Amino acid sequence: MEEVQNSVMTAFDRLKEIDSKLAKRALAAKVDGRLVDLSSPVDEATTVEAVTSESPEALEVYRHSTAHLLAAAVIDLFPGTKLGVGPALVEDPNYGFYYDFLPTRPFTPEDLETIEKKMRELIRRNIRYERVEMPKGEMLKHFEEEVDDYLKCELIEEKGGDVVSAYKLDQFIDFCLGPHLPATGKINEKAFKLLTLAGAYWRGDEHREQMQRIYGISFFDREELDRYVKQREEEKKRDHRKLGPELGLFTFSEKVGPNLALWLPNGAFIRRQMESFLYDLQYAGGYSHVYTPHVGSVELWKTSGHTHHYRSDMFPQMETDDGAVYQLKPMNCPFHIEVYRSAQRSYRDLPLRISEMGTVYRYERSGVQHGLLRVRGFTQDDAHLFCRPDQIEGEIDAVWRLASTLLSTFGFDDVRVELSVRDPEDQSKYLGDPAIWDSAEAALASALDKNGVVYKRMEGEAAFYGPKIDLKVVDAIGRLWQLSTIQLDFNMPERFELEFVAEDNRPHRPIMIHRAIYGSFERFMGVLIEHFAGHFPVWLAPVQARVLPIADRHNDYASKVVEELKAAGLRAEPDLRSETVKAKIRDAQVQKIPFMLVVGDREVEEGKVAVRDRKAGDIGAMSAEEFAACALELARTRSREGLERQESSSEEGRPGTPELQS
Amino acid sequence: MEEVQNSVMTAFDRLKEIDSKLAKRALAAKVDGRLVDLSSPVDEATTVEAVTSESPEALEVYRHSTAHLLAAAVIDLFPGTKLGVGPALVEDPNYGFYYDFLPTRPFTPEDLETIEKKMRELIRRNIRYERVEMPKGEMLKHFEEEVDDYLKCELIEEKGGDVVSAYKLDQFIDFCLGPHLPATGKINEKAFKLLTLAGAYWRGDEHREQMQRIYGISFFDREELDRYVKQREEEKKRDHRKLGPELGLFTFSEKVGPNLALWLPNGAFIRRQMESFLYDLQYAGGYSHVYTPHVGSVELWKTSGHTHHYRSDMFPQMETDDGAVYQLKPMNCPFHIEVYRSAQRSYRDLPLRISEMGTVYRYERSGVQHGLLRVRGFTQDDAHLFCRPDQIEGEIDAVWRLASTLLSTFGFDDVRVELSVRDPEDQSKYLGDPAIWDSAEAALASALDKNGVVYKRMEGEAAFYGPKIDLKVVDAIGRLWQLSTIQLDFNMPERFELEFVAEDNRPHRPIMIHRAIYGSFERFMGVLIEHFAGHFPVWLAPVQARVLPIADRHNDYASKVVEELKAAGLRAEPDLRSETVKAKIRDAQVQKIPFMLVVGDREVEEGKVAVRDRKAGDIGAMSAEEFAACALELARTRSREGLERQESSSEEGRPGTPELQS
Repeated sequence: MEEVQNSVMTAFDRLKEIDSKLAKRALAAKVDGRLVDLSSPVDEATTVEAVTSESPEALEVYRHSTAHLLAAAVIDLFPGTKLGVGPALVEDPNYGFYYDFLPTRPFTPEDLETIEKKMRELIRRNIRYERVEMPKGEMLKHFEEEVDDYLKCELIEEKGGDVVSAYKLDQFIDFCLGPHLPATGKINEKAFKLLTLAGAYWRGDEHREQMQRIYGISFFDREELDRYVKQREEEKKRDHRKLGPELGLFTFSEKVGPNLALWLPNGAFIRRQMESFLYDLQYAGGYSHVYTPHVGSVELWKTSGHTHHYRSDMFPQMETDDGAVYQLKPMNCPFHIEVYRSAQRSYRDLPLRISEMGTVYRYERSGVQHGLLRVRGFTQDDAHLFCRPDQIEGEIDAVWRLASTLLSTFGFDDVRVELSVRDPEDQSKYLGDPAIWDSAEAALASALDKNGVVYKRMEGEAAFYGPKIDLKVVDAIGRLWQLSTIQLDFNMPERFELEFVAEDNRPHRPIMIHRAIYGSFERFMGVLIEHFAGHFPVWLAPVQARVLPIADRHNDYASKVVEELKAAGLRAEPDLRSETVKAKIRDAQVQKIPFMLVVGDREVEEGKVAVRDRKAGDIGAMSAEEFAACALELARTRSREGLERQESSSEEGRPGTPELQS
Repeated sequence: MEEVQNSVMTAFDRLKEIDSKLAKRALAAKVDGRLVDLSSPVDEATTVEAVTSESPEALEVYRHSTAHLLAAAVIDLFPGTKLGVGPALVEDPNYGFYYDFLPTRPFTPEDLETIEKKMRELIRRNIRYERVEMPKGEMLKHFEEEVDDYLKCELIEEKGGDVVSAYKLDQFIDFCLGPHLPATGKINEKAFKLLTLAGAYWRGDEHREQMQRIYGISFFDREELDRYVKQREEEKKRDHRKLGPELGLFTFSEKVGPNLALWLPNGAFIRRQMESFLYDLQYAGGYSHVYTPHVGSVELWKTSGHTHHYRSDMFPQMETDDGAVYQLKPMNCPFHIEVYRSAQRSYRDLPLRISEMGTVYRYERSGVQHGLLRVRGFTQDDAHLFCRPDQIEGEIDAVWRLASTLLSTFGFDDVRVELSVRDPEDQSKYLGDPAIWDSAEAALASALDKNGVVYKRMEGEAAFYGPKIDLKVVDAIGRLWQLSTIQLDFNMPERFELEFVAEDNRPHRPIMIHRAIYGSFERFMGVLIEHFAGHFPVWLAPVQARVLPIADRHNDYASKVVEELKAAGLRAEPDLRSETVKAKIRDAQVQKIPFMLVVGDREVEEGKVAVRDRKAGDIGAMSAEEFAACALELARTRSREGLERQESSSEEGRPGTPELQS
């Protein structure tokens, strides 16, 4: 097997002619706009550009080459390992690349360190990524005889053209289109990391070989890796799947079934506050609330079209003895439509805003556990606004303001907005009157503009039945979450033949706006747990204050304080166990209770409580009444803050507790 | 055909000997304790008692004879009519008797009057009810040849013994065991009434003849009939199936499916107030709230035993592509048990009170429409109290007090209590330790006694898995409704192997108390609508006050008043239509809005509103502020009262409105 001849002029040669410093920094090249290896041959006529670490294309090449480096290290350490695929991941916030292996013995987490070490060794040897090209048959023969990897052969057989390319790195050769870095020395040995081991089926097929996937990440700079590691640690600490059961927020049960969440008392408490908050906002905004069943006759789903285009996402049908067929609702819309249809509507009745905390069921195929982020039953804060075409802009404006108020209360002030409109190239695929589309798209844009919203216009991303607005929020550690949606619908009103009597005394068709702000309580809660790292603000915290007596003799006083706080309207409880106050504080911290009120001899004597904030630590002593007033004000204003040491308070914290602050 | 010989001494003869006045009042007799005709032969040795209108047995005989009278009148008017059965109904609050007919042409409502007239004619003729007895074959022959009624023949064939009895009345003869009144003159012609026509299948079999049922009622006194008719009119006026859609409380939709209620905005609003009220009471009572899914894996239902003994009441199973089987929940208990099981529990954690506004689905076979009283999906205010045996009494005590507070808020002060305990004759059919049963039954009784509750002890009515307490309330028009239940359960904790670590550091089994106060929101709402006749008290009313400008020029002032009331915390709206104030008042009355505030020139000038209460009528003029204070106080205290004319208010009602008061 021979390597490609480099005696002709290469992209690198050309770059060197232009700017030798730039050539030295180059990781790959763009030849006539095509991304290629630096060793790629070019003739004089072509345009050649350098791809450096600053280029947008660079990271994918860099990580792809890191994946090859990983495979080369594995082959070196574990000869006989069969190879799957190893792509770069650039959009994934969690991983940078992976490689799938069929090892001779299962890899252990300890192996990852050994492999990393070997990778660093190969980096220091600065080995070239060599591209080889040959006819398919020849390549197949090579992989069969020399490499002995039937998985790769299967891929070459299926995907390869007449002439196929491969890349060699040390002992390792891979069927691959490239391009790659010129050599391993270009990889920063201090800026990559192998992350985790996972299972993966060969080609995603559960009937095929179960392989082991090694996930890793690589950056150009050490600082980027450090930032990434810190972010990952932060995410792990905030993982709602861990915090949820720990804080008594939610759980799952084998017996109930996978991906069906049970809201535990603390989670249910928080959810109810969230519901009430929205309910009040919606009531003030002229919404009506309804309750509708979780099942409906299949006739309903035929009319809505769900049995046709949504069937695979629905739970199976239920056929009763008497021949009726029911199905669990994957969406609330048809029920709200039936509410609309329960009376004759006139133009004066519009807009009619029907809302429900509606639990829907969708049979997600994958049984993968994502905690609350992917469940088979979830409750949407679902509303359907039935309006006249001339009311669209006003409704969108009001929905935006409602969403903005609600999201910012949770600290989601950075909201990224996308407006999805028709594909200007092909308007034939959209249902409904183009004139209504035009005015609706304009109304959506205008409502956003009016509120000074900067948004991204997504051409061609509208659903066939109407344009929409998606809101994504940025959480406390910079991650983006899609939560709220505002979707126009010209289709359902047609299907259900909705009407209102207009001023002309004739029937007209209303427009329907689907709208959810929380999106679903399950998902929102999952995001919220991670956003707050479990430190729910005072207005949401199931227990707002815990009173901690230092010794048993302070228990009566502690109970009295609790009663006082409760009477004032706070959610308080005492910790009357015979534990040290240090242990009591630790437990309250673990449970992320906003305020700990320590009471001992001094407090009993002075009729005070020594307040400790879960974040700020010791605040100082004050009367229960003073404390209640502060805490209630935080709750009333739905503040996300805690209490801070008052400058006017010259007192020391509790003797004996300061060491806990460190 | 000969009538039974009366030459022997009859019950009547004997009664005459004893007390001739009593004999004259007698309707039937009891011979050695057996209820018989007055014409029944007796020998000297037997004891004979008179059955008069005061006797508990009298009404059934009386109504049964009225049913025969009805049939005789029908046969007279419509010869050739075939006869079904015609029993007396004594327990049914709605009807007194019925008779099923297969008429030669369908009866119309007008026919009922004609039939009543004929019945009165037959009463005046004072015709005897003649009992005949003969061998079965002879009776069959008579019915085949003389009466030509194959339906009756079918009955005689099947039900008759060797000797069968029949009763003749004028042209009419019926296969019947009796006894009957001596003659039609005993029926008070002013105290009976034919009520309604309904369809009924012969012998309840939908594959057999569809017959026409005539329902009627009869009393001994005219006053009783008058009271009954008034009660029926009152019930009709209050019928929740009529008021529900009229007041925008709930509706049903063909497309969604029969017996699946949709809560319309007004009904949903009221329900939410009811939920919040209970939620607050429960929160104060140390309950935890949860949310659980509406479906569960069939494994859950196998463990709970529902797939075994409750299957026919459940919606059908759903089998997914991946082989999992799910089923809609008919009860919340197993989910709350899974919440219990989500953590290790110690004796200190008990009682654990898990509550949920949990929507369950049960597939009632009958498709009969009873509005909200019989639905296939309903939301229970369901709680499960997990406790130690020594905590039962305390928990029952607390539940009773909670129930009593809640029910009396709705005006259900008259609560009838039933305590269902084991059958003392056969204790073998009950599951669990007899000692625990003993102490549990004693604890239930003791908790009721402690609260001074008078209750009925129902021996043998306990479920096999535990004793229970049922609460029935008396509504505004004297009807009894079963609402709340408190059920002990020794079975589920066994099935799910529930445990807590007791003070002895060893696992013990908790006891479970199922408890619902509202019962279900659907049923409670149905009862409530009829109880209040749609006049929901101020705290529940979706719109508490409507402001009615007399002319368009008062609209601005009306809107200003509405804003003021809203700011004060009232639910108010203006009626700005260009209608007369008379029409506006009429509409507000129909919608049963508690307060109408009329505003015209005088009110604008004086800065007042003329308050009209939906029941008391005009109250007088006051400032919006004064009115808001009164109305808010009614709401805050959950009063069921309205406003009354203040003695201090010397002002006249609005000129122009008094005529509406009549």
